[in-house]
Amino acid sequence: MTSFAVIGSGAVGGFYGSKLAQAGHDVHFLFRQSAAHVREHGLHVRSIDGDYHLTDVSAHETHDTIPRCDVVIVAVKSNVNPDVTDVVAAVVKPGGVVVLIQNGLGGEPLFADALPADVEVIGGLAFLNSQRTGANEVTHMGNGGLTIAGYRPGYEPAGITPGMELIGAAYEGTTVPVTLDGELIRARWTKGMWNIPYNSLSVVLAADTSELMNEPASEALVRTIMEEVSAAAAADGCELMEGLMELMLDATRAMEPYATSMKVDYDAGRVLEVESIVGEPLRRGQGLGVSMPVIEAVYRQLTFINARIGAV
Amino acid sequence: MTSFAVIGSGAVGGFYGSKLAQAGHDVHFLFRQSAAHVREHGLHVRSIDGDYHLTDVSAHETHDTIPRCDVVIVAVKSNVNPDVTDVVAAVVKPGGVVVLIQNGLGGEPLFADALPADVEVIGGLAFLNSQRTGANEVTHMGNGGLTIAGYRPGYEPAGITPGMELIGAAYEGTTVPVTLDGELIRARWTKGMWNIPYNSLSVVLAADTSELMNEPASEALVRTIMEEVSAAAAADGCELMEGLMELMLDATRAMEPYATSMKVDYDAGRVLEVESIVGEPLRRGQGLGVSMPVIEAVYRQLTFINARIGAV
Repeated sequence: MTSFAVIGSGAVGGFYGSKLAQAGHDVHFLFRQSAAHVREHGLHVRSIDGDYHLTDVSAHETHDTIPRCDVVIVAVKSNVNPDVTDVVAAVVKPGGVVVLIQNGLGGEPLFADALPADVEVIGGLAFLNSQRTGANEVTHMGNGGLTIAGYRPGYEPAGITPGMELIGAAYEGTTVPVTLDGELIRARWTKGMWNIPYNSLSVVLAADTSELMNEPASEALVRTIMEEVSAAAAADGCELMEGLMELMLDATRAMEPYATSMKVDYDAGRVLEVESIVGEPLRRGQGLGVSMPVIEAVYRQLTFINARIGAV
Repeated sequence: MTSFAVIGSGAVGGFYGSKLAQAGHDVHFLFRQSAAHVREHGLHVRSIDGDYHLTDVSAHETHDTIPRCDVVIVAVKSNVNPDVTDVVAAVVKPGGVVVLIQNGLGGEPLFADALPADVEVIGGLAFLNSQRTGANEVTHMGNGGLTIAGYRPGYEPAGITPGMELIGAAYEGTTVPVTLDGELIRARWTKGMWNIPYNSLSVVLAADTSELMNEPASEALVRTIMEEVSAAAAADGCELMEGLMELMLDATRAMEPYATSMKVDYDAGRVLEVESIVGEPLRRGQGLGVSMPVIEAVYRQLTFINARIGAV
């Protein structure tokens, strides 16, 4: 049986970890302050796929009590990554696997550098609409897919790796559709095409996705940012799917008004994931010689806003 | 004696008009709702150059009671221009002068097209820190200079015109230093180099000038916008003063925290002067083949914000 540790048991880690526990895997959650509460009351998942209640949850205040595991799922906010590399190093088995379920770029190289060379680092992309709604409750409002793709230095394509197959197998029989992707960087640019404009503008303009789509000026701005992402991806060797931009615009127009993760963080007064979602893709694109003036402008706006949040 | 009408008797028109009245000129103010109050109580100017109180003010509810004047000073918000061209046409003498004291571009051609060909249109640039602080009170916090420059179709240089000399002469002996400028478009681009970044970013980032200068990310954004303005001005035949950008940055850094006029409008829930201050310069620059992606981005952001204000 594969053993799992979940570092960061919030909306994302709590959801994906609970699915593994429900399927009978040995899952250990780092819950910090709420660990005792979860041990006593279990973990509630309110889901559009059906609610469930996990009892007998292995919830930990600190990683010291978590045994070394085959797979460590890291689902903290990217800003916290530098604070948890030691934790991950302490709970992953030699030759184990670390899956980083986060947005944007920059996390995988950080962990790859910090961990022993025999640990496999995998990038995870959550297509999930969930929020932590209580000390022991996660609410899952839509989607649920998980894409995983192996990391190689410089985000070179890794193909399908043993670690990816291990994780894919673990989710078999659950409601989580797992996609194994051989090109992490392409997956990140594809998701970034949505994340970069909508996360940025939702904070700068204090707007939900519908408001951004309903006003021609902001829709034009979304498009310009998507075009810059597309140019960066192309320079990075990733021709994105033909028509992807229109597809994303149409899908977003058809969606219920949605608050992006960055907007949710902003409204909660939390520091924003500016570097992973915007700063790292910007620097990577610019490093490839791509002009990205509008993303640079919103990056600077978000950096200003983040400094103000951090200063409070 | 030269007669003046002031259309828009707020922080700018109230101040510059009061200086003429104080100097003994025949000045008629369109005060709309507060006209009776001003007739009864006079007009108070609280000024760092010394407070004064004008009694016996010719304050009007409507332009119908204003006689035709030699000079009409238009100091309404630029968004209101289309609503006052008829008013101005009704109060300006044949062969008279109209001075448009506003920020940005687009106002002069609108009035020039709407007025008889023998009326001279002059652009006015206020270097003034004033606010309307009551129904019959203007507070003047600093500076006070007025630059005037004749308008010719397409903003071609007009040189020093008779109308400009008339206005310059009227302010002689007042505390208002008047500069006669032969190149309106250069004056507008020069002022725009400050107005475009600081007005835009103060609204989008909800910040005063000090906050914008103290954070490297927003200062970098101010610089990028200034560089785009500079490129547009150069394409428009206006090489701006060597070192102007650094001068403006240094001066702004040294200033007390300052809320731009657009920020003041935003905080008061008023529609913003987006088109004259940002949209028209952007279109003029782009029409000259200049790439202005960051100004275009903030223009779209401001258009989004303005639509939300207008929708309230």
